[in-house]
Amino acid sequence: MTRIFLTLASFSLSVAAIADEGMWTLDNFPAEAVAEKYGVEVGDEWLRQAQLSTTRLENGCTGSFASSDGLVLTNNHCTWGCIRNLSTAERNLSDEGFIARSNDEELQCPGEQISVLVDFEEVTDKIAAVTAGMHEAQANEARKAELTRLESACEAASDGERSCEAVTLYNGGQYYIYEYKRYDDVRLVFAPELDIAAFGGDPDNFNFPRWCLDMTFLRAYEDGKPAQTPNFLRWRAGGPQADEPVFITGHPGSTNRLLTVAQLKFQRDVTLPLWLLRYSELRGRMLAWQDTSDEAARVVQQRILGYENGIKVRRNQLKALHNDGMIERKAAEEQALREAVAADPELAAAYGEAWDLIGRSLDTHQNFYEEHLFIENSAGLLGQLFSYARTIVRGTAEREKADGERIRAYRDTALPGLEQRLFAARPVSKEFEQLQLTFSLEKMREWLGPDSHWVRMILGNEAPNALAANLVSATKLDDPAFRKKLWEGGVAAVEASDDPLIRLAAAIDPGARELRSRYEDEVEAPRILGEGMIADARFELYGTDTYPDATFTLRATYGAVEGWQERGKTIDPFTRTSRLFERATGQRPFSVPTSWSKAREDLDPDTPFNFVATTDITGGNSGSPMIAADGTLVGLAFDGNIHSIAGDYWFDPSLNRTVGVNAAIMLEALKKVYDANFLIEELTLAD
Amino acid sequence: MTRIFLTLASFSLSVAAIADEGMWTLDNFPAEAVAEKYGVEVGDEWLRQAQLSTTRLENGCTGSFASSDGLVLTNNHCTWGCIRNLSTAERNLSDEGFIARSNDEELQCPGEQISVLVDFEEVTDKIAAVTAGMHEAQANEARKAELTRLESACEAASDGERSCEAVTLYNGGQYYIYEYKRYDDVRLVFAPELDIAAFGGDPDNFNFPRWCLDMTFLRAYEDGKPAQTPNFLRWRAGGPQADEPVFITGHPGSTNRLLTVAQLKFQRDVTLPLWLLRYSELRGRMLAWQDTSDEAARVVQQRILGYENGIKVRRNQLKALHNDGMIERKAAEEQALREAVAADPELAAAYGEAWDLIGRSLDTHQNFYEEHLFIENSAGLLGQLFSYARTIVRGTAEREKADGERIRAYRDTALPGLEQRLFAARPVSKEFEQLQLTFSLEKMREWLGPDSHWVRMILGNEAPNALAANLVSATKLDDPAFRKKLWEGGVAAVEASDDPLIRLAAAIDPGARELRSRYEDEVEAPRILGEGMIADARFELYGTDTYPDATFTLRATYGAVEGWQERGKTIDPFTRTSRLFERATGQRPFSVPTSWSKAREDLDPDTPFNFVATTDITGGNSGSPMIAADGTLVGLAFDGNIHSIAGDYWFDPSLNRTVGVNAAIMLEALKKVYDANFLIEELTLAD
Repeated sequence: MTRIFLTLASFSLSVAAIADEGMWTLDNFPAEAVAEKYGVEVGDEWLRQAQLSTTRLENGCTGSFASSDGLVLTNNHCTWGCIRNLSTAERNLSDEGFIARSNDEELQCPGEQISVLVDFEEVTDKIAAVTAGMHEAQANEARKAELTRLESACEAASDGERSCEAVTLYNGGQYYIYEYKRYDDVRLVFAPELDIAAFGGDPDNFNFPRWCLDMTFLRAYEDGKPAQTPNFLRWRAGGPQADEPVFITGHPGSTNRLLTVAQLKFQRDVTLPLWLLRYSELRGRMLAWQDTSDEAARVVQQRILGYENGIKVRRNQLKALHNDGMIERKAAEEQALREAVAADPELAAAYGEAWDLIGRSLDTHQNFYEEHLFIENSAGLLGQLFSYARTIVRGTAEREKADGERIRAYRDTALPGLEQRLFAARPVSKEFEQLQLTFSLEKMREWLGPDSHWVRMILGNEAPNALAANLVSATKLDDPAFRKKLWEGGVAAVEASDDPLIRLAAAIDPGARELRSRYEDEVEAPRILGEGMIADARFELYGTDTYPDATFTLRATYGAVEGWQERGKTIDPFTRTSRLFERATGQRPFSVPTSWSKAREDLDPDTPFNFVATTDITGGNSGSPMIAADGTLVGLAFDGNIHSIAGDYWFDPSLNRTVGVNAAIMLEALKKVYDANFLIEELTLAD
Repeated sequence: MTRIFLTLASFSLSVAAIADEGMWTLDNFPAEAVAEKYGVEVGDEWLRQAQLSTTRLENGCTGSFASSDGLVLTNNHCTWGCIRNLSTAERNLSDEGFIARSNDEELQCPGEQISVLVDFEEVTDKIAAVTAGMHEAQANEARKAELTRLESACEAASDGERSCEAVTLYNGGQYYIYEYKRYDDVRLVFAPELDIAAFGGDPDNFNFPRWCLDMTFLRAYEDGKPAQTPNFLRWRAGGPQADEPVFITGHPGSTNRLLTVAQLKFQRDVTLPLWLLRYSELRGRMLAWQDTSDEAARVVQQRILGYENGIKVRRNQLKALHNDGMIERKAAEEQALREAVAADPELAAAYGEAWDLIGRSLDTHQNFYEEHLFIENSAGLLGQLFSYARTIVRGTAEREKADGERIRAYRDTALPGLEQRLFAARPVSKEFEQLQLTFSLEKMREWLGPDSHWVRMILGNEAPNALAANLVSATKLDDPAFRKKLWEGGVAAVEASDDPLIRLAAAIDPGARELRSRYEDEVEAPRILGEGMIADARFELYGTDTYPDATFTLRATYGAVEGWQERGKTIDPFTRTSRLFERATGQRPFSVPTSWSKAREDLDPDTPFNFVATTDITGGNSGSPMIAADGTLVGLAFDGNIHSIAGDYWFDPSLNRTVGVNAAIMLEALKKVYDANFLIEELTLAD
């Protein structure tokens, strides 16, 4: 086959090399481009050290080892769940902050896990072999079974030392098995007060200039002792210089840069508006509910910030997709690729059908999008309690099957993590559960319509709020021991249970599984086939010197500490501590905690606080180390600027910026606000 | 100049003639097309009788006279404000319904007005004469001053018998002065319980099949006595037949069918998403708040339905604007018009600049859209109390100016209505005011940013909820006498007032006026100029056999009683009473009131309940009479089906349907549920 050079379609690649664009896998890092642009060498050893020092928080974040004793630096907002689960009405660790002054005082985060990527193996050929000649739906099943088999084989080969996970890169262009070292005992070491961790709250979120000490220290434990982690990042006390090159390793969650125009429009027209309508309303319900009691406020304070973050992301994604100029550019790139494929008979035969497959997938999906969302994806039954019920009902049934035939969430290699989360002693607010369940039942009725058979089956003649109140008050699923007993009792225990949420989940399950099968066979299967074809066509036409969309797997990105131009003004890349105090109003979310007011005179007002860099990151990178060319940690990524949100679809080097906490303010605060020299010593940075 | 026949661009006109499309002014009604399609004659006398029998409710609805004694039929939902204002914690007329069994028992609706269009005069040439040769901003001011002058002259000529209002048709293609007979004493006669008026609530809203008795009788009074109204519509007891032609007169509020593609995209990208995000959240806050007390529930029950209606409209408008195929068709029509203009040197000179003017207007608007919305349009200061403050602060200042120099809302001819509303004794829930003000202050901070000078000026160092609580508790603007005293005391009284909301409105006013001026000069003026050019170009190229966008002025539309095809199924145009009871769950919003349960055995189960027709209506038509060719009222328009919402931008004859209450069920219910034969007698329809 011929390689065709296309000026237009390769434009995004040449931009990538110039523009600090790309969330690169570590085995395909563009070290040459970096050397050329920034004059620094990023060798294999540098990358290996960064890889082994970077951790994945299984709740959706990144972290980095900060000492050889398992100390992990991550964002405060990555640990809100842990902090809330360890708090009570009497002791609100979110408001008060937390410092363990010895290992004894460190508190285990219920159900949290940390992983480190130690190795990976490409298995693209193996997947191709088992699916060869099959029709799309059959191939989809065979692919999943083979991935499950490969994961199990990998774990068996490691004697249980490794957790192995299948990874799909380039939307199906490559398959890998990633091997992780996993820590399932994670403890809280240090967290500042929410008021300084998230200073400015939602109004400041995704904005810059900024003043957030969005940091937490966790510690990984093994066998009840601090884990030994010889690979860790040393910190540079002063933080980075302006214009200094900076690298970020981490686990970006997902991007959509390789989607077809039809897929982007599906997000614009269907996915994003529905999500935004639902969660804007839920936000309003939570905001009104938090005023009903102190305990309500405590239960939802961080959750509201989390939802507000999601709303800000998605409304700016929608805004990005309303940029018809960018959509036209995407369409032109797509057209160029399609023409190149069509021009070559071999390529046309192999890949020409790709866009029709994806179009068919979207058309089918649109026909039952709401039903699938509200029933199989539980958007009509929100809350922790129904989620437990679904896991127990479905998981016990799936366990009876052969490993390769199960829904992959219940494969053998996934069960240890699933059980850890299912049995974890996490407090449940029944009042908040009721709020969520009422809301979601009402939305289900709104979107499926009152005459939907699902609505009739679930609501019967009940009003949503009354049904939610009954279900939540009667269920015992808030008790970890009750969940464990049901799980261990298997299908028989589930069938015998009269817990109303278990009964509801069981009643829904057959129909929900039908929706799932339809989704897998008629939406997912043609999409995967089509996307894989497009990925292969791109490889053949443009080569492999490119990066895949984010998949919550390890990536590295590069850039420099640099501001940007906004409405004719230059935004300085650094903020300083003095301005934090000037900007504080004394009212949340612009209130500095007492510890900071007290320490104000001691703090150097010129200490750099937050800063921006041109690095290309996204959600999941939260908690990522920002590493200088010399291998030292100079900052902690916690956000992007408002323009970074369009980065889901395209990277704009002139505007897209990462926002990080400067190493300098982290150390200054540990020393002068929190009297935590023992931590600075552990960082091997004490005076 | 030449008339060019353009196949593409005239397509929408030929469709209109075939497709029951159009909200026609009564002096340009397509009687020939109606005769051709339906074989019925709609003569001048028919139209004049319909005109004089049709009323406008100044709160945004339509009604029709039902007797010679001023009885007015409208929708229940058009009278929610009146019903709430007449209710107390002890007596909830919305829940209980209301029947006045004699004139003595009829209750005056605080601040409501009803108008009847009696005459109109075109003044396009007069407007053209006063603006000739002026630049756009100057022309805009001169146009407004002339409209104010013409209104005053018209009222003076009528010896105070008429209210005169300027009307802009065809987006500036024509100007008119409309003369109304106005009734400012409107009383509540009959309203069914909300549970049957809005059976199905938000879930059923904009859906069909449907079972809503969405009716209310009001009565217009003059000099303390029932008004004499010789022009009224007689009812046909059995309602309409299937396929029967039907006509609707009424006051459709606004449509956007003549907008340019750039204007449509501005709605898609800016206006609609921001509105939907804000009001979805407010909906959530209200839903959560209504659970805090019975009184809270009473205060917001109808308001929630109102906002939910607005959300459903706008989310379906957004969906319509995401229909790229329709946008492309609009773009092609626009391109054809532009090419036709460009092809003729005279047309090009006169109108060629139109689209650039509108583009410039939109670009400028986008630059301060949020600021204008939150400050000048008060989206950051929601609630009745701030609205009173703004009216008093601004109105007293405007009154000092010559009539033609005022903001038009405060022109002499508008003051009687404004004062009636300002002095009306409408109860204010301070708790609900606080909810709205907190919400809107928070949204203002979210969208303008915490560092906006407006946010700093209004919030200072206060949190939004604390500021809202202080302002709402301290203000006396909930007292009508207090408002009246300030209003009558004029600028001096306002300046001397220490009422905190008056002070806030006064502090904001200079900056808000600057935003207003900028909007008028840089957004409105070029838009009006550009739109007027496009309207004139259309007239010259395509003729005047077309209809203008809706402007809350009297229109007539025609069609037939007809179902539609939905996902391969035929929707029958009628629903029947039996199914109402089958569908009732006993839980709101699917609960029939006790009065109906009791009467169930007496009611004929086959009585037609609601029905659909192919007529072209929109919001503002609520309460419109549905009139047969013989001049009898056969139904009461109260909604459209879900497809009718896209009617804001284009009319789809295959899907767009009006939903009405059948005359048959209104009479059946009055007789058998409400024991209101005296009303049937007044309708001259008693057995």
